[in-house]
Amino acid sequence: MKLASFVHQGKRSYGIVRDNGVIDLGRRLGDRYADLKSLLAANALSEAQQLSQEVPDLRFNDLELLPVIDNPGKILCVGMNYAEKRKEFDQHNPAPTLFVRFADSQTGHNAPVLKPRHSSEFDYEGELAVIIGQSGEDIAREDALNHVAGYSCYMDGSARDWQHTWFTAGKNWRQTGAFGPWMTTADEIPDPHRLAIRTWLNGRMVQDDNTASMIHKVAELIEYISTFTSLHAGDVIITGSPGGVGKKRNPPLFMQAGDRIEVEIENIGHLSNVIIDAPAHALTATH
Amino acid sequence: MKLASFVHQGKRSYGIVRDNGVIDLGRRLGDRYADLKSLLAANALSEAQQLSQEVPDLRFNDLELLPVIDNPGKILCVGMNYAEKRKEFDQHNPAPTLFVRFADSQTGHNAPVLKPRHSSEFDYEGELAVIIGQSGEDIAREDALNHVAGYSCYMDGSARDWQHTWFTAGKNWRQTGAFGPWMTTADEIPDPHRLAIRTWLNGRMVQDDNTASMIHKVAELIEYISTFTSLHAGDVIITGSPGGVGKKRNPPLFMQAGDRIEVEIENIGHLSNVIIDAPAHALTATH
Repeated sequence: MKLASFVHQGKRSYGIVRDNGVIDLGRRLGDRYADLKSLLAANALSEAQQLSQEVPDLRFNDLELLPVIDNPGKILCVGMNYAEKRKEFDQHNPAPTLFVRFADSQTGHNAPVLKPRHSSEFDYEGELAVIIGQSGEDIAREDALNHVAGYSCYMDGSARDWQHTWFTAGKNWRQTGAFGPWMTTADEIPDPHRLAIRTWLNGRMVQDDNTASMIHKVAELIEYISTFTSLHAGDVIITGSPGGVGKKRNPPLFMQAGDRIEVEIENIGHLSNVIIDAPAHALTATH
Repeated sequence: MKLASFVHQGKRSYGIVRDNGVIDLGRRLGDRYADLKSLLAANALSEAQQLSQEVPDLRFNDLELLPVIDNPGKILCVGMNYAEKRKEFDQHNPAPTLFVRFADSQTGHNAPVLKPRHSSEFDYEGELAVIIGQSGEDIAREDALNHVAGYSCYMDGSARDWQHTWFTAGKNWRQTGAFGPWMTTADEIPDPHRLAIRTWLNGRMVQDDNTASMIHKVAELIEYISTFTSLHAGDVIITGSPGGVGKKRNPPLFMQAGDRIEVEIENIGHLSNVIIDAPAHALTATH
């Protein structure tokens, strides 16, 4: 089952994406589960499943896609998690590299990705996103995949000139993390480490690997993270990017306004976004 | 005015702390402003001010203090921001060091601080916390202090053996960040860089500096952070710790169960917490 969050005719909703359209779950279940995160928190995927044979009521192309989860409590991002990427960045620390994204740094499929106004090194990273379903703390790796609700694609847009070894400022510019187009539920992905993952910039393939190449596997990441912080429904773990990022190319290759960036993960989906320049003062300061 | 968040007789509330007791604002304004963050978001400090001469209805010692803001949208933490601390950690990068805490890593004044079960290097850091009142993005440093609602003390408990250069795992263990006892409103702190800041472990002074020694001043931090992410009412910036932390002592000095850790900032308050060992599996995994 593929589940997306979206706006349709000005109204926020979520639904099941089928080949022939979208079944609006917000209309059917919205009084009990306001959004996809609430559906996951209530452990109600089976209720969605029961509606999956209804006649679709929306056309996918009429929707304004939101980040799959647009209000995660926690977004944990893993850096340096593919062998080739670690080599590129000369990273040898055996512990998972972890940083945090704020929810408002995200954007949805087909929505603009904003090139930060003060960065000249805006880089792409195609990544597998893991969406937590069952809450937990101190989760053993043997049990970890039972806590996963589903998987999605993520384009972790990175201002390299603001990144440093602590990442925060490089990874939190508004609308730089594209998350979508949908969540493919975990029952359809028996092994998250047998998936081709590819990134294209303007149609040119710039990353081409397989999730088998991850150093710290999904189950191990959940075990590690849940040792120090609890995980809850709708939390997101972004599992790191393969090699081939723009910063380490010769010459470097960064994203500019007008570029199209795409991330595809086998059996999950194809995420596509166009880069535009971030407008000045999107949020007016209130005094 | 000193504003605190608390639980009294099982009910969450917030109020004005006076020498002779606490004026319960939740009881008076709770229907409009559910918590202190909501009061700040509504720019309603003046409404609280109008109630500040009422007869206190609660005794401070009867309250279970919560983190001053227990549900901040964003908690940004600054590392390596005092000259002495930078020397201790051999940090030379001129950009502010920034990492993120999740809201559930916090605890209130007098509540236990939990020593992480898998850390043998649980360290103290006394810090000035800045609480945002007015939302903004791209805030100029000249205007930055107008966005501050108030100040508080923070004890940024740090698992050094999990910290790395990306901080996340060292700074997010449950109930390791003590935040309190209250927020002193900004009108009472005309200059946040003329404040003595001291930390005691079991009555022994282990940090003793002045906020004048901060490398990146509060206004500059707000300018820097708001360049890449919006700031909103109730967001918290923890501005870094002076030198004297346990990791860099010879021999090292770490916190153990039974220890008392205290942070005092001039004109703001005195935060005190006892360390206890974190219990196993506080959050039961749900299946």
